[in-house]
Amino acid sequence: MERQDKELAFMLRYENIAWYDEGAVRILDRRIYPAETRFVTCRTHVEVMQAIRDMVTQSAGPYTAAPMGMALAAWECRDMEPERQLEYLQQAARTITAARPTTKDRLMQVTQACIPVAQKALEQGQRADLAIREHVVQANNSRYAQIKRTAKHLANTFPDNGTVMTQCFAETIVGLMLLECRNRGKKIRLFCPETRPYFQGARLTATVCAEMGFDTTVITDNMPAFVMANEHVDVFTCAADVISMDGYVFNKVGTSQIAICAKHFGIPVYVTGVPDAGHPDYRSVTIEMRDPDFTLQAMGVRTAAQGLGIKGYYPAFDMTEPSLITGIVTPEGIKSPSELGRYFETSQTRGFLC
Amino acid sequence: MERQDKELAFMLRYENIAWYDEGAVRILDRRIYPAETRFVTCRTHVEVMQAIRDMVTQSAGPYTAAPMGMALAAWECRDMEPERQLEYLQQAARTITAARPTTKDRLMQVTQACIPVAQKALEQGQRADLAIREHVVQANNSRYAQIKRTAKHLANTFPDNGTVMTQCFAETIVGLMLLECRNRGKKIRLFCPETRPYFQGARLTATVCAEMGFDTTVITDNMPAFVMANEHVDVFTCAADVISMDGYVFNKVGTSQIAICAKHFGIPVYVTGVPDAGHPDYRSVTIEMRDPDFTLQAMGVRTAAQGLGIKGYYPAFDMTEPSLITGIVTPEGIKSPSELGRYFETSQTRGFLC
Repeated sequence: MERQDKELAFMLRYENIAWYDEGAVRILDRRIYPAETRFVTCRTHVEVMQAIRDMVTQSAGPYTAAPMGMALAAWECRDMEPERQLEYLQQAARTITAARPTTKDRLMQVTQACIPVAQKALEQGQRADLAIREHVVQANNSRYAQIKRTAKHLANTFPDNGTVMTQCFAETIVGLMLLECRNRGKKIRLFCPETRPYFQGARLTATVCAEMGFDTTVITDNMPAFVMANEHVDVFTCAADVISMDGYVFNKVGTSQIAICAKHFGIPVYVTGVPDAGHPDYRSVTIEMRDPDFTLQAMGVRTAAQGLGIKGYYPAFDMTEPSLITGIVTPEGIKSPSELGRYFETSQTRGFLC
Repeated sequence: MERQDKELAFMLRYENIAWYDEGAVRILDRRIYPAETRFVTCRTHVEVMQAIRDMVTQSAGPYTAAPMGMALAAWECRDMEPERQLEYLQQAARTITAARPTTKDRLMQVTQACIPVAQKALEQGQRADLAIREHVVQANNSRYAQIKRTAKHLANTFPDNGTVMTQCFAETIVGLMLLECRNRGKKIRLFCPETRPYFQGARLTATVCAEMGFDTTVITDNMPAFVMANEHVDVFTCAADVISMDGYVFNKVGTSQIAICAKHFGIPVYVTGVPDAGHPDYRSVTIEMRDPDFTLQAMGVRTAAQGLGIKGYYPAFDMTEPSLITGIVTPEGIKSPSELGRYFETSQTRGFLC
């Protein structure tokens, strides 16, 4: 971590990076941040999987937490024969990948990528856990470089003194798009829907925006159409948990209705990311349904009456159709959703950005 | 109140009616109901105005609380000369009407209507306060009869075993549409968006629906589009705080974006109510902007970070365009928004329904 520059520190801070040290992965608990800065300490890779499943970290957070969990798995099996260690890591990758269904393709990528790293380290008589941790830091740095390029393209879509609406928390891209605006002296103001039921928009996105010095307003999730009708929104932008090759965007629930409203009001919708090669079409994506009771509370306080059989309902993501999306902002520039199918013919960027 | 039948008792319960007794108006505090059943006691009509402004009661609640406040004003001035009493009541009506800007036309109607009632009582040597209270009960009974007719038309739009989405809390019409469904043996299931920032949908609408024995699901305000895309919603229905004569609907913020989504998914939108003769067009309606900080908390718990200058934003209502509305459900049947301008040529129903 010593090599990280100030900008990287900024990024890591907002990614709430999970960090592996001998025998433990510490993950910032985003469910309570920024009211409290508390870390969840995982002593096994299974606990890391559980922490991801329990939303201790979300958005891109799991793509750091999951491979750090692989470093922890390497620590757990350090006294086995090298060949058994690799089997143990294969099993750990499967375990961690199962944490959340919608993003399992990305979780598989980041955990599987640790196995050849461990293999090489073991062959050279080095510690697999430390090699994996070093790999995670480098992979993040490389991802940040891609996101930085993406942020430049995104910032081009904002007029000076423009108004931008966000959705949920896209940690690094939010921070880097604002850094890009700041570097260009471009002023924008931001409207951040609060993002129920976890309030990531109110708690996380708004904190990043305000700390970066931008005019930041939090609205409740029933207000985007009002704001579009009355506050001259120039751009709606969000990241994506999955972008299928046929141009469908899967992101925090609420994204699709904001995109529908944006189309109604003639406001462009820009989604940052690259398509997920593992998802040829929208049918290959499973939307995670979480504990329904969670929508019957807010900040830990029960909202609906008890004892009457009132049900909750909690899809973690929703699907936005390509016809609602103006452009997918990639490191190589802005693409039409309809041209994503040919994305890998010309682009070297694989993986994901958020 | 002795004359009220069981059905009326049901209605009054859900209207959380304000009740005048010598020297006080008691109003159920809907900001905390149903978690707690607590009443706010107002000792002057100015306190009644303040209670309405502070959202102790909302939806149609103020149209009972406000004239009950007029009964209290009549009590306050009971020792004055009759002519001075009427002046006092005129002033009280102006004070109470100013409680909330968007619905001031309706507040003016219900408070002004008390003045001839008081005048007649005083001329006959009777108590003006009791006469006003009796007038309020009768006016409500007559309103309930109109809403009952409206509910029959609305229930016709629901298929058997259909799925209905609501928005916010339209106390009497919600209760009576469900009573109508029950009487017809028509099963429906309901999705109630929670309605931030006050959670009226989660707390009030869902309670009515579940207590009436219907399958009731609370969703957060970012989920309507997902539910429309995945749960085969047959009808979206809501009431209105104002319907202008040119067919624009002003209702709890969030209504317009649900209507936009309904149009996108081809789901009919039925709004219950009658046009407001005092609002010839949408330009004559002022949308109330409430304390912005209120959107930075949920159930009393702060959501956004403090000390960073993050702003809130709180429009209490929004405007839904006529082109998004399938029909306005009135006591005389379902009207196209475009024909509301001629509504009073054929209808005797004035006032409002919710």
